[in-house]
Amino acid sequence: MALPTTMKAAVLFGEGDLRLVDDYPVPRPAAGEVLIRVAACAICGSDPKILAHGWPNHPPYGQFIFGHEYTGLVAALGEGVTSFEVGDRVCVEPHKGCGICDNCRDGYYTTCLNYGDRAKGHRHYGFSTNGGYAEYACNHVNSVYKVPKAIPLDEATLLTTAATSLYGIRRIGGIQAGETVVVFGPGAIGLMGVLLARLMGAGIIILTGTRSSRLELGWEMGADVTINVRDEDPVQRIFDLTDGIGADAILECSGTTQAAVDAVGCCKKNGRIALVGIYGQPAPLDVNKVVQWNITVAGSKAEGERSMAQAIALLNQHQVDLSPLVTHTFPLDRIQEAFETAEKRLGGALKVVVNP
Amino acid sequence: MALPTTMKAAVLFGEGDLRLVDDYPVPRPAAGEVLIRVAACAICGSDPKILAHGWPNHPPYGQFIFGHEYTGLVAALGEGVTSFEVGDRVCVEPHKGCGICDNCRDGYYTTCLNYGDRAKGHRHYGFSTNGGYAEYACNHVNSVYKVPKAIPLDEATLLTTAATSLYGIRRIGGIQAGETVVVFGPGAIGLMGVLLARLMGAGIIILTGTRSSRLELGWEMGADVTINVRDEDPVQRIFDLTDGIGADAILECSGTTQAAVDAVGCCKKNGRIALVGIYGQPAPLDVNKVVQWNITVAGSKAEGERSMAQAIALLNQHQVDLSPLVTHTFPLDRIQEAFETAEKRLGGALKVVVNP
Amino acid sequence: MALPTTMKAAVLFGEGDLRLVDDYPVPRPAAGEVLIRVAACAICGSDPKILAHGWPNHPPYGQFIFGHEYTGLVAALGEGVTSFEVGDRVCVEPHKGCGICDNCRDGYYTTCLNYGDRAKGHRHYGFSTNGGYAEYACNHVNSVYKVPKAIPLDEATLLTTAATSLYGIRRIGGIQAGETVVVFGPGAIGLMGVLLARLMGAGIIILTGTRSSRLELGWEMGADVTINVRDEDPVQRIFDLTDGIGADAILECSGTTQAAVDAVGCCKKNGRIALVGIYGQPAPLDVNKVVQWNITVAGSKAEGERSMAQAIALLNQHQVDLSPLVTHTFPLDRIQEAFETAEKRLGGALKVVVNP
Amino acid sequence: MALPTTMKAAVLFGEGDLRLVDDYPVPRPAAGEVLIRVAACAICGSDPKILAHGWPNHPPYGQFIFGHEYTGLVAALGEGVTSFEVGDRVCVEPHKGCGICDNCRDGYYTTCLNYGDRAKGHRHYGFSTNGGYAEYACNHVNSVYKVPKAIPLDEATLLTTAATSLYGIRRIGGIQAGETVVVFGPGAIGLMGVLLARLMGAGIIILTGTRSSRLELGWEMGADVTINVRDEDPVQRIFDLTDGIGADAILECSGTTQAAVDAVGCCKKNGRIALVGIYGQPAPLDVNKVVQWNITVAGSKAEGERSMAQAIALLNQHQVDLSPLVTHTFPLDRIQEAFETAEKRLGGALKVVVNP
Repeated sequence: MALPTTMKAAVLFGEGDLRLVDDYPVPRPAAGEVLIRVAACAICGSDPKILAHGWPNHPPYGQFIFGHEYTGLVAALGEGVTSFEVGDRVCVEPHKGCGICDNCRDGYYTTCLNYGDRAKGHRHYGFSTNGGYAEYACNHVNSVYKVPKAIPLDEATLLTTAATSLYGIRRIGGIQAGETVVVFGPGAIGLMGVLLARLMGAGIIILTGTRSSRLELGWEMGADVTINVRDEDPVQRIFDLTDGIGADAILECSGTTQAAVDAVGCCKKNGRIALVGIYGQPAPLDVNKVVQWNITVAGSKAEGERSMAQAIALLNQHQVDLSPLVTHTFPLDRIQEAFETAEKRLGGALKVVVNP
Repeated sequence: MALPTTMKAAVLFGEGDLRLVDDYPVPRPAAGEVLIRVAACAICGSDPKILAHGWPNHPPYGQFIFGHEYTGLVAALGEGVTSFEVGDRVCVEPHKGCGICDNCRDGYYTTCLNYGDRAKGHRHYGFSTNGGYAEYACNHVNSVYKVPKAIPLDEATLLTTAATSLYGIRRIGGIQAGETVVVFGPGAIGLMGVLLARLMGAGIIILTGTRSSRLELGWEMGADVTINVRDEDPVQRIFDLTDGIGADAILECSGTTQAAVDAVGCCKKNGRIALVGIYGQPAPLDVNKVVQWNITVAGSKAEGERSMAQAIALLNQHQVDLSPLVTHTFPLDRIQEAFETAEKRLGGALKVVVNP
Repeated sequence: MALPTTMKAAVLFGEGDLRLVDDYPVPRPAAGEVLIRVAACAICGSDPKILAHGWPNHPPYGQFIFGHEYTGLVAALGEGVTSFEVGDRVCVEPHKGCGICDNCRDGYYTTCLNYGDRAKGHRHYGFSTNGGYAEYACNHVNSVYKVPKAIPLDEATLLTTAATSLYGIRRIGGIQAGETVVVFGPGAIGLMGVLLARLMGAGIIILTGTRSSRLELGWEMGADVTINVRDEDPVQRIFDLTDGIGADAILECSGTTQAAVDAVGCCKKNGRIALVGIYGQPAPLDVNKVVQWNITVAGSKAEGERSMAQAIALLNQHQVDLSPLVTHTFPLDRIQEAFETAEKRLGGALKVVVNP
Repeated sequence: MALPTTMKAAVLFGEGDLRLVDDYPVPRPAAGEVLIRVAACAICGSDPKILAHGWPNHPPYGQFIFGHEYTGLVAALGEGVTSFEVGDRVCVEPHKGCGICDNCRDGYYTTCLNYGDRAKGHRHYGFSTNGGYAEYACNHVNSVYKVPKAIPLDEATLLTTAATSLYGIRRIGGIQAGETVVVFGPGAIGLMGVLLARLMGAGIIILTGTRSSRLELGWEMGADVTINVRDEDPVQRIFDLTDGIGADAILECSGTTQAAVDAVGCCKKNGRIALVGIYGQPAPLDVNKVVQWNITVAGSKAEGERSMAQAIALLNQHQVDLSPLVTHTFPLDRIQEAFETAEKRLGGALKVVVNP
């Protein structure tokens, strides 16, 4: 079947200036790439920031299509692609490394030393390269993963989120069965962290946050204890819950500096903390405790080290139902409404999905 | 040869009240312990604090002998000891775990969950248990290591320091040959860090500090570049030195919060930071960079995981001369003068050793 | 409640000479030990060998009580024990290290360098120290774990088995979600390996063996594919199943040298093999493939590195029903019958439990 | 300066049919490649086998240039290359992965799953792609490393060898200072293993072999003990040397099955063995000991995970003199003589270098 030459796309024409266009040229997959007919693209917390301020090295305004949590069907194959077939149901990760810097060669492509350098082969889909708020998108095979049959494509947009949570967990050596795990921040990444910790056999899972509806959802997803940090001191509570020992493994997903501080505060001797949030300012960490308690604090950049593959397999094998996390869907035409819903969390919005 | 029943010891009778006594009972080694005729005990940066303020769970004032960087000869064996003989030249590490908590069983005895609980078998020699400012000291075999012939006992007090630096290095996965290494703080731990990084084949070693005499010593011990942070911004300089990439591995040994902040500042994408200092207050770390650059920050508690054994072997095999670091020695009678020399860094004091 | 002074026990009086006695002295827990009122002790594959031939360093015949997969209730506490209370439901692991050798200090107590040396503190319950075919047994706290309420004590004898399988998995870096896993040998350890791999999100799980009833049980426990090695070549089949790539992770639990050879044969480039079986002779491994394919072969000694704690937590959190594996139970009086049932696999015996 | 269009090359025209040609077209570097004016290419143990039998997927006879341990000067840059400049002194590693298979993406490019598939980007220089017995060779930047000034280009051919030894060491978690290390086989890889172990602070280094001249050379390079396996049983001797405990870390570089067997035989509880040799047949390993002693056996494929970078840095930082290992050099015209010298070890040949 012949591909169309033009497509609908939500194009960024300037800061805050998002326009729907009908005649955007359909991209052609280069060697090693696949063309994806986008079925769904979820709004990530970073998307409103891109909408408002752009992104370093973004494609020129007027041509820039963002959105990086997308799924769809493979529509065409670039030269040399043998690992996918037309029709495959797929999801993507935004990062594709240059493949030649030391970090990439060691497997750490999310911290590629040639970030944003398209000539050297780096891609950050939806950021420095076009992404998924359009009918079609091109992705290098290294950034594409097959979606198991049991996972609908709307929900599969959450696989990128799951991989982000999972990479945080992997950055601190995984969660061992029986460990006390604390997750700060009941956003999509934090809730997915709760779910993954549950699957990995965590002992007590403690979720902190400020909104009771989200904490309740976290409880449904596997948290044993929820703490509303507006009502009580999480550090004190966690020490009470652990006979004064503290938590083994901590995922800080809230992005607040107080939570980063509390993560150190509630950590066990020899415990590990993954920082997964986006922080607006420095956090005054108790570095003396970090030293005296032999604590590891690991920043976790995106869905590194092929965490997508593992996240997909883990959720699929355990037949996890992700549908409670997709609270809203909008057609591409109503993308503005989708953003408003996501940003203002209208109707208890958690994950808002756009269907191009 | 019969052991004496009393000995000379420097005993802490209260805050700041250190007295020499002649008739302190010589301790008797319990099962699994050795008695050491102390030859040398170096003053650590934490000793003046103990002198001034004591330590949690310390032995009662009037009986408390501190000092934890000591060496000597084995003078007697407790029941069941077969791994040492009388006359062995030995050095010690201050930490001996309880052996039954989860951390100890996993090998992390410096973060024993029964810290200070002598009934459960934990020992922190020179802190919660008596130490080395005396003619004799008793140590469990797990805290005693043989000193190679080539290392004089005065200098061997530095092996505890070396093991602390080495543990910091191990906490960040070791230093790989060719890596750019930054050491913040040219105290004994930092200088030893420079030396160890050199032995491990580090590429460029950068040492920062405030005193030019110490930086110069660091240069002699193997630093390629020294930065006086009073004169220039270390972060900027380090980026200049690394083509804008930053440092692979960083040892923060200064204990200043600014250095902890700068450690994050100068770190490479996917780089690692060991915190080894003692900090008086929280450090406002750029946690957003920690996340976005996938940085690992590892607190490093003392000479963990038998780092003593490795530090001794590494220095011995490379025939390292530690004598430039031992700047002063005093007999036990002049311990007060020794402390003054160490604290005020009189005569450029680096490591001050007391000989009981 | 006063403890009895004598108890029923199955005592080994010589090779093959197992006798029930009524007046064996009830042991008294030493410092750091607990006394356990044994509820159940499962017959391990090594028990018939001990019955027939004894064990190096075993307690004197006439006093030797073996059996090492036991559960029960804590009946009394030795001096200094605070981590257990009388009445706690517990299970045990047979190994307790000396705590002073290098391996023990690093956490590898199942390969204690003072194996069998009771004076140095090593214990191998049911082997070089008395074990569980008796009404009471004494265990050091390091070898005792609490059994969650949901797991009956008969089934909890399988936790030792589970920990053995889990340690094999841990020795090869864990099983990552989505990986192709092969388990050779559908005995208790192999079947538990299938179950654990399933919980960890393995992709395809392949189980090989010779008896179809066991393979069927393995399929029920989570294997996707079973291979009867009498009917087909497992290596060829596994390559067929994996598009010619081979298996990521392999657990060799059969103890046959052919399976060890096949484990290398079916392994992927950069794959990992855990050897968990007991082998009667050397296995002619294709070492050239091991090199050229960068394969890791890890021997796995017992339930090392506190794998018991993780195995218990993982099975408990996933509410796994272990009852299908306990096929027979016998009172202590009928222990001979129990052994015959286990050895001859009468009535399809899998795990045979003795209740003292 | 204009590049010539033709060059001298030693071309394989068939099994055993190596011919010098004068008019081989000088290759042109593709995007991401550099053209190297070859200064030196050492004869590796695998080269005589290629000469005699070719290699799977080799370039067509009549065009096939082999040789993979080469050094030279960068003569031209392919499109997009910015990490090298014309005139750079460089050495190479033979493996360049496809960059898209799972192993490559995880950093394990020497076990690329697309081995030999040039269309997918895999290169094995001197095997499935042309190599260094010619005046010019083209290499992808991922396979090229700068040679420090202090290392002459003839000796720099040994950096590939050093990286092979180092990767073996890395595959078993590195060598910790103080460890007892055994190296089987005093060929170039084994001798380099001795040298590297020495630099890493190994305790006792034991080298085994059959030729006393090589063992003597090994002693000069850092071995503490040499064992001629014709005269004594290495396993017995190693246990004698280690108080019956065995060796911590073992490098099997001889490629004999007996040495592989002995490697297991002399290994400590919880010890590690790297297999680095090329074996002609299966080795009957004592797998029961592997299990009961918790031993790790790691095959080590070539110079994986950028070991070249570390090997170069380590040797350079320690100012190691490699000249004793380069025993013979020949101009390209005399390559046949060079091969004869290497194969028959004429004049005590160790590393024989060809200068195109």
